[in-house]
This record gives sequence, C-alpha cells and structure tokens, in this order.
Amino acid sequence: MRIDKITIGHGSGAGLTRELINSVFASEFKITSLDDSAEIGKNMVISTDAHVISPLFFPGGDIGKLAITGTINDVAMSGAIPKFIVVAFIIEAGFRFSDLKKIVYSMQKEAEAARVQILGGDTKVVEKGKADGIFITTTGIGQFVEKNKLSAKKVRNGDKILVNGNLGDHTIALINLRQKLELSPAPRSDCAALDKLVQLMLENGDVNFLRDATRGGVATILNEIAEETKLGIILDSKKIPVSSIVTSISELLGLDPLYMANEGKLVAFVKDDTKMLISKMKKHELGRNAIEIGEVTDELQGVYLRTEIGGLRPLPILDSDPLPRIC
Amino acid sequence: MRIDKITIGHGSGAGLTRELINSVFASEFKITSLDDSAEIGKNMVISTDAHVISPLFFPGGDIGKLAITGTINDVAMSGAIPKFIVVAFIIEAGFRFSDLKKIVYSMQKEAEAARVQILGGDTKVVEKGKADGIFITTTGIGQFVEKNKLSAKKVRNGDKILVNGNLGDHTIALINLRQKLELSPAPRSDCAALDKLVQLMLENGDVNFLRDATRGGVATILNEIAEETKLGIILDSKKIPVSSIVTSISELLGLDPLYMANEGKLVAFVKDDTKMLISKMKKHELGRNAIEIGEVTDELQGVYLRTEIGGLRPLPILDSDPLPRIC
Repeated sequence: MRIDKITIGHGSGAGLTRELINSVFASEFKITSLDDSAEIGKNMVISTDAHVISPLFFPGGDIGKLAITGTINDVAMSGAIPKFIVVAFIIEAGFRFSDLKKIVYSMQKEAEAARVQILGGDTKVVEKGKADGIFITTTGIGQFVEKNKLSAKKVRNGDKILVNGNLGDHTIALINLRQKLELSPAPRSDCAALDKLVQLMLENGDVNFLRDATRGGVATILNEIAEETKLGIILDSKKIPVSSIVTSISELLGLDPLYMANEGKLVAFVKDDTKMLISKMKKHELGRNAIEIGEVTDELQGVYLRTEIGGLRPLPILDSDPLPRIC
Repeated sequence: MRIDKITIGHGSGAGLTRELINSVFASEFKITSLDDSAEIGKNMVISTDAHVISPLFFPGGDIGKLAITGTINDVAMSGAIPKFIVVAFIIEAGFRFSDLKKIVYSMQKEAEAARVQILGGDTKVVEKGKADGIFITTTGIGQFVEKNKLSAKKVRNGDKILVNGNLGDHTIALINLRQKLELSPAPRSDCAALDKLVQLMLENGDVNFLRDATRGGVATILNEIAEETKLGIILDSKKIPVSSIVTSISELLGLDPLYMANEGKLVAFVKDDTKMLISKMKKHELGRNAIEIGEVTDELQGVYLRTEIGGLRPLPILDSDPLPRIC
C-alpha cells in the first residue's frame, strides 16, 4: 500500500523514518551521509535535533535536560568537544511559566556541566491545541582535533562493539509513566551528557566510530552501520546489559531492549584489545556497566544475535519504534 | 496582573516576548545580546529560528521558503555570508507527503539560489492534534571577513536609516488569507533572501548595522536599537514606503505597517551620504523601492515619527503583535 500521509512511524527513527529521509529529504537536499552531525569549515561540526518528548518531566530528567544532553551527545559522537548551543522553543499558549522556568533551569545546568555556552535562540508561541506543551530544537557546535575525527567509514572487520551500560532505561522510564504502570521505585531515564566519557574513551582506546543509541536503539543503529559498511555485526546475547526491571517489563510487554531508545548510552566500534579501555570506562560514573557486546565480521552482512544455544538470530531494522514521542 | 501562563503575545516578537526573554531566558542562559545571531569561533556566526506560520502556503512563498530565507537573512544581517543550514522538522501525523515534498523543494531551491548547503537535520512526528501541520526550525552558519562585522554598537548619532522597500507586504498577504478578505489580485508576501543585497550594500555604503524587519516590524526593531544605544530615532512619515493595497487594508483594519512583520525587508543604519548607496540598491530587484526613512539623533531617546504637520509622534514598543503565527 502506498502511504501518502505522514504517520507516527515516520518519526520513530526506524525503517519508516529512513524511508522518509530517502524519499524526500536526501533526494531533495542531496544529503549523502546519515551521520548525526556534519562538518562545517575546518574542525567544526554541527548537529540539530527537535525534542518532542511526552511527558515533559520524567524520573531522571525533563525535556530541557534531554534537549541539551541529546545535542551534546550527537556532537560528542563525532569525536568533537561540544562548545556552543542555540535553542528554538515552540510553546503552546497556556503553558505554565513555572514549568518553562524548570525546563530552562535544567538546560542551563546541563550546559554548564559540559562547559557548553548557550548563545541564544528563538521563541514562538502557538495557539492552545496546536502543539503539545513545548517543543525544543537544539543545535550544537563542536570543535575537534583532526586525529579524533570519527566516521562509520573507519569501521573494520574485527572491530569490537562496546556499550557503556544497561540498555532500555530511558524507554522503560517513559513506558512506566505513559502506561501508568506505577512501578515503585519508578525506573529512571539514563538521560546524560556523554561528552566526558567520550573524551576518556578517545584517550584510552583505539575508537573508530561512536553513535549514541537513541531512537530505534542499538539494533537500529547497528543496522545503519552494517548497511553503510557492507559488513556484518554479531552480538552475543549473553553480554547484552539490561537491568532486571527492564528485563521484566520488556518480557511482560513483549519488547526488546535492543530496539529501545536510550538517552545516555553509546555504541563504540573499537580496534584491537578492549580490556584496558573497558577498565577505564568502568571508573567513570557513566561507564560502570561498560561491556563488549559483539564484533564486526566480513563473513556475513547485516546484524545478528548469537543466541544462548549458539544460533544466529537476525536483528532486522523494524518499520517503527514501539513507543513514539520518547525523545 | 501577574501573568503566570504563556500567551500568544509572548511569541509576538514585541513587548511580551522581550519580557519572556528577560525574565526567563536571558537570566538563566546569561545571554547578553539581543542580536539575531551569535559568533562561534573566529569569523563564524550562527542563528536559529523556529517557523510556525499559518497557513503553510501563501502567495509569494511557503513555510519552506520562509524557513530558509529567514535564516539566510538573520545570518546575512550580521555581515556574514550564509554557508550552511541544518533543519529540524516537527510534523503532525496525517500531514500529506505531497505537501511535505513541496515544502522541501522550496527549501532546496532557496538554499541553492543563495549557495547555501543544507547539511542535514532531524525529523520528529507527533500525533494528530499535537502540532499544526508542520513546524520547521532552521539553523544557519555564516562566515565573514572582519571588516564587515556589523553590530548595534556601531550605530552613531547622525546615522541615516534606510529600508529596501515597501513595508507590510508579508503581513497583508497573510491577513488576506487568514481573514478571508479574498482580495484580487491576492497580495503577495515579500519573502526573499537578502544575502546578495546585503553584500551589495556592504560594498557600496558605509553600513554600521543591519536588521531584518520581521516580527514586530520596523518600529519594534528600531526601539530595540534605540534602547541598546541610548539614542533617539526619528522617522519621516512622508518617506515610509507602503504600497497602496497595504495602505488601504491597514486603514480599514486600523493597523500600522510600521509594526507589521516583513520577510524580505531590512533596516540599515548608514553613515554619511546615502545617495550612491540607494542608487545602487535600486538596481537590485530586492531594493527597487529603497529609501531613506529617518535618522539617528542624540537629542532625544526612543523612536518617533515626524508627522506631516511637523510634530513628533512616539512609536513605542507594543505588548503584542496584532497577528501571531505570521513567521
């Protein structure tokens, strides 16, 4: 069936989003890369993201924190050090000043912690019923030194795949609120700025590529890399780090944490021995559960999970994320 | 009365917007300038704008054209040459693919005409009823040579104030659609990229400062400059360029074109003789009606209109724009 209208799935970060990018944006704008950031001039990168999360406040963060850390992370994944952010607000009439102040306070706090300067921005207000409280678009600029320029093109056969901790925390925190599961204690989002962890990783390991595992989760991101590099990726099911609460809720709802959005997790492609790197990561508060979860191979194409009994289960790209409006 | 909720007026670009900026954004983000763009690193500027115009398509443009030209103009007003743009879309589920394609086509067309590269972006989809068709946030990067860095700080007593043509065209084009006036021929928006006109002006005149006269119109922008510089500005009522249709509709609705949003008009502060500059501007298609409309003075503070009988009528900053969602 030819879909001639935009659906929620087109914003999921998964298959339908890529279809939209390929059929409309990439063809018109002549964009050649699916990277989350783009180079501007010498040694600078830019990245932009619209944030439409619902609800706006959640355990572990709010839309303001998410908007700043999300953009810091997109910039940081290129190997750059985030320096500046500009912000555009779209606010629904009737939105509370006190909530706006909380959000803006969160933004400034995260920016200061990462030594990122918020340079200014724009504010538009739309009539009640024409938005969902507040939408925030953040655009970040980072600077990097040549040797740290990361790219999917650097990914090689034999690269090890690392994550910095448990998957699915952000999604389950949001599901708990949205589905009114009322879990106690309420699961917390992993929303965090990864810039310092990235710099630590670049100093202590032979990192070829980094990507934060947001919309679509680890499985979707790995599919993009597999496609771009024409290589295969095999994950080890025994190594995927997931907390017990996320495991329980996932099983209950029939969801897979490998496809869940995270807001403080990255996937790293690392050359050679990763032991030293992982031990360094474990000393950082955002890398305590860092672990090697798989490997790049040129013996097949696509993304697979090696099951407990040794078989290979495909992890294809899905059409849509199970939960939209999560970031 | 203490307003504790965001109102439509807070997005008008006028007095309430400034109150919002001062009470929430400037205090938290520690922003010291009200400029539409900010410097990043050496000789680069950045500017971001959310576009929420309704209706999305109008005579003379659409939200896509507006988003690109608006950001090109914000960058160009600093004296820089626009180079790169990143785009963040927020799309309401149910939006037509065909409309999205039209919008994206407009964006690419304007970007190409200005030799601006669209580097990429982000797309989010929200449920039906949680947005108004499509919102587009564009962020632009420009590069400039030191001698062309413009700033309100350069404005001096005696500077002449120029505009590049008729005021109010954009607002009246939108009013005609929104109020279903069904004027024939339908008034067209002046939506246009001013980057080339700006470069022509910098080459042919002693320009101290430029600002595009969007939300709030010429009067609001001049008030901001008057406040920042502690100087006075006197406009000559006989010189304000307004088309006959805009004059008629304005009188009918009791609106003042000096407060109307434009999307292809700039205000320039120019030192010394402006004759040569104006004659050059008149040869450019976007400067055909260029005219000197007033002067900066240190003999009073604020913005005034010299009436036909020689009196001075104050042009204060208004609380709110008469027509929101216009850009």
